[in-house]
Amino acid sequence: MTGGIPFHDNPRNWFHASGPESSVVISSRVRLARNLQNVPFPGQAKPGELTQSLESVFSALQQVPAYKEGQFFRLSAHTRLTREILIERHLISQNQCENAHDCGLAMDADGNFPLMVNEEDHIRMASVKSGLLLEEAWREVDGLDTALGQKLTWAYHPSWGFLTACPTNCGTGLRVSARLHLPALSLAGGLQRVLQGLNRLGLVVRGYYGEGTRALGEIFQVSNATTLGRSEKEIIDHVQKIIRRIIQHEMDARQQLMSGTNAVRTEDQVHRAMALLQAARCMNYEETMTLLSRVRLGLYLDMKLPASLPLLNEIMLLAQPAHVQQAAGKDLSPAERDVFRATLIRKTLRSHPKK
Amino acid sequence: MTGGIPFHDNPRNWFHASGPESSVVISSRVRLARNLQNVPFPGQAKPGELTQSLESVFSALQQVPAYKEGQFFRLSAHTRLTREILIERHLISQNQCENAHDCGLAMDADGNFPLMVNEEDHIRMASVKSGLLLEEAWREVDGLDTALGQKLTWAYHPSWGFLTACPTNCGTGLRVSARLHLPALSLAGGLQRVLQGLNRLGLVVRGYYGEGTRALGEIFQVSNATTLGRSEKEIIDHVQKIIRRIIQHEMDARQQLMSGTNAVRTEDQVHRAMALLQAARCMNYEETMTLLSRVRLGLYLDMKLPASLPLLNEIMLLAQPAHVQQAAGKDLSPAERDVFRATLIRKTLRSHPKK
Repeated sequence: MTGGIPFHDNPRNWFHASGPESSVVISSRVRLARNLQNVPFPGQAKPGELTQSLESVFSALQQVPAYKEGQFFRLSAHTRLTREILIERHLISQNQCENAHDCGLAMDADGNFPLMVNEEDHIRMASVKSGLLLEEAWREVDGLDTALGQKLTWAYHPSWGFLTACPTNCGTGLRVSARLHLPALSLAGGLQRVLQGLNRLGLVVRGYYGEGTRALGEIFQVSNATTLGRSEKEIIDHVQKIIRRIIQHEMDARQQLMSGTNAVRTEDQVHRAMALLQAARCMNYEETMTLLSRVRLGLYLDMKLPASLPLLNEIMLLAQPAHVQQAAGKDLSPAERDVFRATLIRKTLRSHPKK
Repeated sequence: MTGGIPFHDNPRNWFHASGPESSVVISSRVRLARNLQNVPFPGQAKPGELTQSLESVFSALQQVPAYKEGQFFRLSAHTRLTREILIERHLISQNQCENAHDCGLAMDADGNFPLMVNEEDHIRMASVKSGLLLEEAWREVDGLDTALGQKLTWAYHPSWGFLTACPTNCGTGLRVSARLHLPALSLAGGLQRVLQGLNRLGLVVRGYYGEGTRALGEIFQVSNATTLGRSEKEIIDHVQKIIRRIIQHEMDARQQLMSGTNAVRTEDQVHRAMALLQAARCMNYEETMTLLSRVRLGLYLDMKLPASLPLLNEIMLLAQPAHVQQAAGKDLSPAERDVFRATLIRKTLRSHPKK
């Protein structure tokens, strides 16, 4: 438990790296934007109206089976640190962290269905899965949408579809995304070409914490750019097809990294990264992510290493600034945080069972 | 044994880091240049004359107790690789390696008295000790000079003293030098100031393989610049006084590295270096020396590390290009050598006894 937010032990959580293609696709996410009929969008609503929408959404959710044993956060009731931890878990947005009043987050017991209330739209509900499972994620979030739609009335227009605050979400309200880990393309140098090609295919590439952030640890969020004018199935099929192509590029690059004299260079980078994670006394988050990326690559390439993907995912979460701050239990300067982070990482790695 | 050249197990050898101040002074070396009377200097001698001087020196040495169980190398009888190994052990010069004909090397059984024949001068005899022991090294090489002087007649002029090929050696023929390890001054940034001051004090700073070479692993060879016009004792006292001052600067810098918040940064660098030596799959010699320097610093600062100074000295020798080539037993490209070196280092470190 970190700040009341659990690591979800259910093996279906993305954290456990149990899904198909999980050596490239860290997680699949399908989210729907929905707004309540006859209530202004959050950006235009008066405080009382926001309170009303938060309460009606939470009360509807409590009748949906998936959230029966879930958690309900009213963000303003939590410290800034807890909200930052929720950002680091990709559960709320920076915007919700800053303007927490009447913003909410609901999560099912397994942590697979984070649902934001009063972000840009009244509701942003998502299904998150380990590996490449876009269709399954879609079916689940579609089911959730249907269940909630029986309790709440959506803002909907016969020609434009579901109405949203931003026109890029209008129509289906669908955003299909995946977090892809592309260490071999990064190392081999083919990454920029692959990523640049995505724009022409109607896909958007984002950094580690979403729109406007940098990539960390060679992890990239890829998603559809628009939602209007095509069916949900068409959007999902298209994104999935492109992701399968990226996976193929990455797998080719990995094979290249292990061919001939490249192999020992690759092994060198992986083992050096593992050793630094085990030994360093101070480390910033960016370096942590780069080293984790190398070790992750080593695991994909079947190198014998004292680590596992779930363990690396745990470090990826725990080593983030707010998580480190929370674990320390007191305010830390950035320099102190780097020291505490290194200690946390060494301790977590030692928890890996020795053969 | 590497190419017939042993690692000297006698604890008095510099390799064992047993001498005084050996946390800064890796080795002390006092050498005398001597030439035979009535035989042209090697640069001017005809081939037959060089053969003659080599034979008369070797035959005189065999009657000196220190060389009774010693080794006598006629360099032209050895492969280029063996000669390169001798350079890497600081036992012969690059010049002797290139023009091996009639060049010789004699070594006592403990490896403390390397004696070059037909380098620039007919004889360059040295005493090498662990730590700062210039006076003791001087007494020993002086004794050797006396013993040899009873068998051979030196080129000597009443006003100029001992005659040598190069005027900078003329007079006493004495070169007093020490290999200093200055990691803290290097890290803290005070190194250039200290080294630049030495020239004004009549001292010369050289790189890892002597004149005209670069420093490696923050190890610097410091020696007197001239030998004429002062007694041996004056030269030795002067060099020793300056070295004691450098030691003090280095010790101050080390204390600084462990004070306040610097300590964890220093520990970080040391533990990272140790980890990389234990884990890397390819490594060039320059990086090896930099990492060894950090680990050595950690040992000086009493950090708990799976290494010892003799073990690090062993790696410092073994990891050199010719040594690596010799250990591999076949020709290696530079890239292959880096891989073989990393393997050698990992294996040697594993030989350190676990607690």
